Amino acid sequence: MKKTGLTIVKVGGAVVEDEAQLTQLLENFRAIEGAKVLVHGGGRRATKVAAQLGIETKMVDGRRITDAAMLEVVTMVYGGLVNKHVVAALQSLDVDAIGLCGADGDIIRSEKRPLKNGIDYGFVGDVKKADGAKIARFIEAGLVPVIAPLTHDGQGNILNTNADTMASETAKALADLYDVTLIFSFEKKGVLSNPDDDDSVIPVITHEDFERYKADGTISGGMLPKIENALGAVDAGVKQVIITLATALNGQSGTVIKG
Amino acid sequence: MKKTGLTIVKVGGAVVEDEAQLTQLLENFRAIEGAKVLVHGGGRRATKVAAQLGIETKMVDGRRITDAAMLEVVTMVYGGLVNKHVVAALQSLDVDAIGLCGADGDIIRSEKRPLKNGIDYGFVGDVKKADGAKIARFIEAGLVPVIAPLTHDGQGNILNTNADTMASETAKALADLYDVTLIFSFEKKGVLSNPDDDDSVIPVITHEDFERYKADGTISGGMLPKIENALGAVDAGVKQVIITLATALNGQSGTVIKG
Repeated sequence: MKKTGLTIVKVGGAVVEDEAQLTQLLENFRAIEGAKVLVHGGGRRATKVAAQLGIETKMVDGRRITDAAMLEVVTMVYGGLVNKHVVAALQSLDVDAIGLCGADGDIIRSEKRPLKNGIDYGFVGDVKKADGAKIARFIEAGLVPVIAPLTHDGQGNILNTNADTMASETAKALADLYDVTLIFSFEKKGVLSNPDDDDSVIPVITHEDFERYKADGTISGGMLPKIENALGAVDAGVKQVIITLATALNGQSGTVIKG
Repeated sequence: MKKTGLTIVKVGGAVVEDEAQLTQLLENFRAIEGAKVLVHGGGRRATKVAAQLGIETKMVDGRRITDAAMLEVVTMVYGGLVNKHVVAALQSLDVDAIGLCGADGDIIRSEKRPLKNGIDYGFVGDVKKADGAKIARFIEAGLVPVIAPLTHDGQGNILNTNADTMASETAKALADLYDVTLIFSFEKKGVLSNPDDDDSVIPVITHEDFERYKADGTISGGMLPKIENALGAVDAGVKQVIITLATALNGQSGTVIKG
């Protein structure tokens, strides 16, 4: 049976927190035909609110150490401030958005991350189950889920979960039900082979390419987990993953990740 | 055609922000049979977070003056911190809760309150339309809406809306579709005829009673808008409104408001 298309767009904190960029992104998102889902971050805003509250932000390998106070901050900022702002903005564009975190309708469960290399990440959740059927309920009702990077453990605790992971887990969970295109919106035109040349976009990355680029240092740092996430999604049945500019959500440019 | 029953419980900030009381309330809420909705406040927590951020809380007649900074605080606290905490707690009790504000699924629209007696309440929304059919979508899907006291104006703005009003507007919007019982959970056993005697619960209040109690001063202050809300709901077709202790949601005690 031919499946319907579904586009999942991940948008990071830098875009979400810049009103002009966000407006542009949401206009582009609105123009995407068919069923769609938006997954957002909000880390920069969380860092700012934490600082205003006198709470220090500690990051390890780009991941936020989330103690009890920081968990309250991210719950407020991701689940409240950013999520409701995006939902209201989409509603004003006649997109019937609904804000969800993993706890809402029990769509994404996680478990508290155990110590990793001796590092206690605190209230950070590793996804255990993203429930495609539960997420699809909203999509089939004509709603457009706007997902905040928070999950729950089923025992009453909210956990902080990386937004890229939320996007790829959501994509994988829905791959049985839809032909899923996952778009990571990005501040560059795609994955660059030369960081100093914005036009050096690598058009396609396969597993094999990735190993080579990793070995020769072409791809490094924060790009590594992003591409690992993307490859994992493709391996799990997501039709395609594209890394591209927030202003280019039409899938005509950027880097395509292939299995 | 006989309508199915639906219970809407409004729970205020004092209960939501006390972990022991909240746990008790949610256990009682879970025990309610049939379709249900929870509407929560969170004002005390908002005041606390605002103070931590160096933002002063100004109230007029028990209503919060909501400037741009305060709007961010209530959006964070109501939509994020309190809402997601309650949703995760209900999920741990096997209640399939979903957090919603007025913007989510476009369930409750409002308009920015005009100057009232020369007072600018700021980003406060007076409800224009609570959409019963849109709220019922979630209930019919077996979900339990947990509604935060935030609305939207359809132009991209979140507005702060009184939680009692959210509860009564939701009840009225659903009265055509369900036999609605609206319960205002309260820190006293009901509306008291003597504030110094916790057992002086007035069992029934009609429009006529209300006018009398108002005239002779038996009912005053914050109780006035609460009962006006309740009477408005009953007039609009809500089956019954009960004001009772948070620990007594079974409808067997408290003050019943009748049209």
